[in-house]
Amino acid sequence: MNVEITPGDTGSPPTGCGPIRPESEGPGTTLRHRVFECVRSAGAVSRIDVAKQLGVSPASITALVGELLDLGLLQERADASRTTTRGRPPVALSVQPDAGYVVGIKLSRTRHTALLVDAAGQPLAEASLACSDRRRSLDQILSETEKVLDTLLGRAGLQRGDIACIGLGMPGMIDHAAGRLVWSPLLTERDRPLRSLAEDRFGVPVAVDNDANLVTLAELWFGKGRAMADFAVVTIEQGVGMGLVLNHRLYRGAGSLGMELGHTKVQLDGALCKCGQRGCLEAYIADYALVREASTALDASGSGSTGDEAMLEQLFEQAKAGNEAARVIFRRAGRFLALGLANVVNLFDPSLIIIAGERMQYDYLYEDDVIGEMHRLSLNRTGRAPQQIETHAWGDLMWARGAAALALSEIADAMAEGRT
Amino acid sequence: MNVEITPGDTGSPPTGCGPIRPESEGPGTTLRHRVFECVRSAGAVSRIDVAKQLGVSPASITALVGELLDLGLLQERADASRTTTRGRPPVALSVQPDAGYVVGIKLSRTRHTALLVDAAGQPLAEASLACSDRRRSLDQILSETEKVLDTLLGRAGLQRGDIACIGLGMPGMIDHAAGRLVWSPLLTERDRPLRSLAEDRFGVPVAVDNDANLVTLAELWFGKGRAMADFAVVTIEQGVGMGLVLNHRLYRGAGSLGMELGHTKVQLDGALCKCGQRGCLEAYIADYALVREASTALDASGSGSTGDEAMLEQLFEQAKAGNEAARVIFRRAGRFLALGLANVVNLFDPSLIIIAGERMQYDYLYEDDVIGEMHRLSLNRTGRAPQQIETHAWGDLMWARGAAALALSEIADAMAEGRT
Repeated sequence: MNVEITPGDTGSPPTGCGPIRPESEGPGTTLRHRVFECVRSAGAVSRIDVAKQLGVSPASITALVGELLDLGLLQERADASRTTTRGRPPVALSVQPDAGYVVGIKLSRTRHTALLVDAAGQPLAEASLACSDRRRSLDQILSETEKVLDTLLGRAGLQRGDIACIGLGMPGMIDHAAGRLVWSPLLTERDRPLRSLAEDRFGVPVAVDNDANLVTLAELWFGKGRAMADFAVVTIEQGVGMGLVLNHRLYRGAGSLGMELGHTKVQLDGALCKCGQRGCLEAYIADYALVREASTALDASGSGSTGDEAMLEQLFEQAKAGNEAARVIFRRAGRFLALGLANVVNLFDPSLIIIAGERMQYDYLYEDDVIGEMHRLSLNRTGRAPQQIETHAWGDLMWARGAAALALSEIADAMAEGRT
Repeated sequence: MNVEITPGDTGSPPTGCGPIRPESEGPGTTLRHRVFECVRSAGAVSRIDVAKQLGVSPASITALVGELLDLGLLQERADASRTTTRGRPPVALSVQPDAGYVVGIKLSRTRHTALLVDAAGQPLAEASLACSDRRRSLDQILSETEKVLDTLLGRAGLQRGDIACIGLGMPGMIDHAAGRLVWSPLLTERDRPLRSLAEDRFGVPVAVDNDANLVTLAELWFGKGRAMADFAVVTIEQGVGMGLVLNHRLYRGAGSLGMELGHTKVQLDGALCKCGQRGCLEAYIADYALVREASTALDASGSGSTGDEAMLEQLFEQAKAGNEAARVIFRRAGRFLALGLANVVNLFDPSLIIIAGERMQYDYLYEDDVIGEMHRLSLNRTGRAPQQIETHAWGDLMWARGAAALALSEIADAMAEGRT
């Protein structure tokens, strides 16, 4: 292991004029960190291209790359895909995969998923754990997390001490910078120091974030984000989440708690939301909103025993079979989804919006009608191509890969702050 | 003049991996530009503090500061406010005020306002021009702009050739990067190459933007933004606009057309908006929305001749006098304003929201009830101080100062791209 982070000293709050959180692409982001990020996002890139991209002299880049090579974070190899006229192939820089192992863990209601990756982000092993869908204590959740972590390490033949960082994500409001859990639908408790409790239990540095940011990081590191500077991700599952990438970096909001698109109000005094307020977007389109409507409109006998997922399945089957009440439920939810997406377009104007979630099979919510309505509700920006929309039905493993990206970011951030 | 920008070559679209627009704080922002921005925002600052803030070695900063001193963009003076133990006062860097003159012009419905400032942003002269409030041609608007510009230059004893850049702002949708007017309530035309037409007429480089971004730049350069990294500005006048500062820089949206908060939908199939769609936030709270309600609920005889401003004045007087219908109009508009502000909080979580506009005298819209409702509609982020709200009743001159800041940014950007 070349990379070590001491548990507890990650992500301390910024003070005064000093370095600020690197994820905000602030002035405190060191040039060395920017060089590393540039190589990471490119996959393989020459020194001269790094210099061009960062607008810094080749001599400075050579010096910084030298430091990163010495630290064992980058490697250089002859780039076989290009040759110069002199016959000597140019040298491409890439991330040194052996620089460290990290683990990404996505916690969700009924299943936890863990993934081991190398420093270049390549998956090496995975594990998952089925669990109760009841709200439970943080202690119980951490015990489950420990179980899936140890299963994963056992499969890979590694010890906890071999792991440079664990990225841990769950639904809810998570303060990434402070490492604090504000609220999660998985938990009976609120406002707990999640990161330090996890670090104490696992003896490994931990980074925490909400699940919408995980899937956004997965897109940023391993998906569309390698090529796009700005895009938005909207997740629809038990709640509605949003991640936003600005200029190749995840934007977490000024307060580091994430962008709560699901709780933006789309109707004054509207439908009741799980958060206790009224008129939130997710009160019209999240799973629980559809289940609530299904239990009103359909023959809902036995719904208490079959649970929400079965109820949703039943609603979808009935809509497909032509039940008008079921169709009306999906149609309205689809219109509100279109409204939510149009609000994202009107505010951020991203060139791409990725809709992600497990339940993409409910195609009533994602059909052409919804995209058409979104365009109608968006401002006409003359002469511009219409917003591109993609739906990615990622399973838990992609979210876990995002958690691994979170851990890799943490290593890069530690390096930026001179903690390596 | 030490600073010159050739008309027409400003803001060319980014290509490939090369430098991107500096306002997006991209990797293409050169370190020299970052040094200049750091000095500009600090007012006066030492080399060592610049090095600390940017996370770059003091030696690199000294070299870059040397270049900026040679270009005549920065100056250094003994910092009388601090002395070292050795008795020699440290040297503070500041922007060289003689580096160039710029003009900021705010165009609005009934009055255009122009301001001359030096390179450090200090106002030197001002001028304004009353004009018709009818929609008119772009040619007519540019003639009016030319008149107010020449009045201003006459007062200052300057020629057009003495001006390094003109910042020009107006309400509507303006594509800053492309210099294109998409739509404005002032104009009968849409989709016109505003910047190049203005440059052809004035013979001076021009930068264009929408008015909400102007007031945000004014706050960033001369107001609260000197101390705050992240804040939002919401403008309420004929329309509803928004500006967002992330990490000390104006964020213009991925497409450079600005953040259209006024056209985010707050009710599906709701009130009709000027844009032709329904349920937009501004269809509930902008001037025209209040006028529309006033003309329905009040004795509106003669409103056609007195115009919107008189009608609004009358509505406000009646509410103050106890007319319940008038009060209900303000109360509802206030609740929708609270909802719009809460959506800004839920998405961005800025530590400060500044509400700006000329019509702050309608205190029904800005009273404690509205702030209270905004807090009720915002997610409870445990352990966090509630969002700070300020109302700034800036007149046209402050907006013109923002236009001047736009022109100064353009100079700094030209420098970053090596065009000086």
